Amino acid sequence: MAALRNSIDAALRARASRVVPGGMWGHQRASGLSDAHPQFFDRGLAGRIWDVDGNEYVDLMCGWGPNLLGYGHPQVEAAAREQAMRGDALDGPAAVMVELAERLVARIPHADWVLFQKNGTDATTLCVTIARAATGRRKLLVARGAYHGAAPWCTPSPAGIVAEDRAHLIGFEYNDIASLDQAAEAAGSDLAGVLVSAFRHDLARDQEMPTAAFARRCRAICDASGAALILDDVRAGFRLHPGGSWEPLGIRPDLAAWSKAIANGHALAATTGGDRFRDAATKVYATGSFWCAAVPMAAALATLDVLDRQDVIAHMVALGSALRDGFAERATRHGFALRQTGPVQMPMVLFDDDPQQARGRDFCAALLRHGVYMHPRHNLFLCAGHTKRDIAQVIDAADRAFADLA
Amino acid sequence: MAALRNSIDAALRARASRVVPGGMWGHQRASGLSDAHPQFFDRGLAGRIWDVDGNEYVDLMCGWGPNLLGYGHPQVEAAAREQAMRGDALDGPAAVMVELAERLVARIPHADWVLFQKNGTDATTLCVTIARAATGRRKLLVARGAYHGAAPWCTPSPAGIVAEDRAHLIGFEYNDIASLDQAAEAAGSDLAGVLVSAFRHDLARDQEMPTAAFARRCRAICDASGAALILDDVRAGFRLHPGGSWEPLGIRPDLAAWSKAIANGHALAATTGGDRFRDAATKVYATGSFWCAAVPMAAALATLDVLDRQDVIAHMVALGSALRDGFAERATRHGFALRQTGPVQMPMVLFDDDPQQARGRDFCAALLRHGVYMHPRHNLFLCAGHTKRDIAQVIDAADRAFADLA
Repeated sequence: MAALRNSIDAALRARASRVVPGGMWGHQRASGLSDAHPQFFDRGLAGRIWDVDGNEYVDLMCGWGPNLLGYGHPQVEAAAREQAMRGDALDGPAAVMVELAERLVARIPHADWVLFQKNGTDATTLCVTIARAATGRRKLLVARGAYHGAAPWCTPSPAGIVAEDRAHLIGFEYNDIASLDQAAEAAGSDLAGVLVSAFRHDLARDQEMPTAAFARRCRAICDASGAALILDDVRAGFRLHPGGSWEPLGIRPDLAAWSKAIANGHALAATTGGDRFRDAATKVYATGSFWCAAVPMAAALATLDVLDRQDVIAHMVALGSALRDGFAERATRHGFALRQTGPVQMPMVLFDDDPQQARGRDFCAALLRHGVYMHPRHNLFLCAGHTKRDIAQVIDAADRAFADLA
Repeated sequence: MAALRNSIDAALRARASRVVPGGMWGHQRASGLSDAHPQFFDRGLAGRIWDVDGNEYVDLMCGWGPNLLGYGHPQVEAAAREQAMRGDALDGPAAVMVELAERLVARIPHADWVLFQKNGTDATTLCVTIARAATGRRKLLVARGAYHGAAPWCTPSPAGIVAEDRAHLIGFEYNDIASLDQAAEAAGSDLAGVLVSAFRHDLARDQEMPTAAFARRCRAICDASGAALILDDVRAGFRLHPGGSWEPLGIRPDLAAWSKAIANGHALAATTGGDRFRDAATKVYATGSFWCAAVPMAAALATLDVLDRQDVIAHMVALGSALRDGFAERATRHGFALRQTGPVQMPMVLFDDDPQQARGRDFCAALLRHGVYMHPRHNLFLCAGHTKRDIAQVIDAADRAFADLA
């Protein structure tokens, strides 16, 4: 077992603890993980990442999703550099904005129009605002435990939140039609929208794909009431289906939120919608200094070019299947029971009888020492930059990590 | 008078109208300006911008603020490119985050810590959330007509907003101590914070610097009640004073929101605060996929290097003073009465007896034809990339534009 160097990381943590609250914040805060997890990273290339101490890992987090094609993808980065030479945040958008909007509308069946932002939270918030503007109603149905961003109305932490931030949210259980119906009934004639994740990818629990019946029921409730079906495709967008994650179910949303992977790591988010919501989208005022910056849009266009040319999803599915099989086989060999759920290209890997993910944490710590970066309670991400060799290395590392645990 | 080419812009507008609600949205929507205002831009360099038809302008909007040092600043762009070769949105921050936080804490007297985001709205929202988390109270005093972002709690448009989004906001008049006191009284023991812009820079009205008495009163109300004084320095940050816009007044906020200029056009925002609010900042959960991306942080560090080496503010003030004098002199010469208000480096230029800014619009349209881009009802921005020659060209263009109007 190679010992991990961590002196640079430790020194940075000490410095950060003085000038950043808690030393780090948000989803990338490493202090809740194992002692082996690095906090600071130096570089990425394809499906690999290096921490600041020079330790190299096969990266199963992919920047928490943005890395779809591989870090430093040559075509994407060349497009970004070329655009940066001309301009980024100018007095208005560049022509790439129109081209990108056209490409997304052509690719995404429910989309007649697009608006761009920076954060996934910007996109989900805008969907909700448009739904309310279009319907003149207030109530929003959301699955309990789902993550839709980190603004006051949706952040998982109550600190600093007032009751009014969530005054019109009504909870239901994902994939539970009876609870969805109950929530819709509670909203009554004030139902503005149903906000639903592409699949159930809550923290630290088994993932669930939406059942066809559940998706149909979401659609039917909105059709019957005139409310907006809002698909939160921020995390899953472009990893499950090129036109939106519910396309395989045959259910199309009225509005959808996108971010993470759409510009292969450049900061961009998008709201797509159908013509029924175009007027409302025109009336809502949401904007930001960098929302029309051209560089991430040029990167997104290059990302779409790659997606058009290569079957990126099939590649991730093939590798993800091999990874799932390999994990399962090695776990069994060493006497561990794993639960691997959700799409193979966005897997959740949990141990049985491990409610606090203590074993998962130890497993991830051991994996780090064997050259693999993953998270004990958040879904993982594969990317097109991963290779069969990477996956073989992960499975071999898992074999050794299980041996370390046993 | 040179005729402006606009066929490419017109074609892009026609295409955009099909795939973007209203053809464009937010603050960069050109359709509310004159027919001469281009919607789409091709490139920027220093203090100049080119629209998609190749028309060149001295740019007095500076990307609506982000362009502080000049578009395509060599040192900033080199730092960004170098960082992009290593990594941007990785599994955690890079070392540049710590260095940037240290540099900001060293530069900004009230700041003991920093958190980073993408949008100015993220920063103002986070300030409010931290103030509420720290105090356990709810009420927020905000100046009527002030712009603090475009989330539902602060967007200037009511479309899609519910009453609860603003349940705990209490308005006051900027620079009016009696109305501030009245608002504080209305908040009573539930006062969480006073949110105030660096100066009064509301749309389409004369700008006002804060009076010393007003700033002191904001501070005194917070000191007496334990509420947070929150300075919204998103628009003015680094243009008025290197350590925060209220430093010349001797009044320090508890929390401040920054964005626009801090990375010279790269998408970044920051929240700074004092130690009294560190615990609350640690508890609040606000995050985003790209908030710790390394490229904008490398750009911000390079921006700070330039600010340390050159007196960028003095340069902008000198040019801004010459611009103000030149505008005034040429207006008088042609029989027009202008009101030029606010800091000379962020001027508002309005015509007397022009409540709808119709004359302002015509003036801006004429200026465009003479090679100057400006806005008829939003404050302008100067940058370090502007030269004496640029300003002389603007004044000459103004002379001709006034002649066109007269």
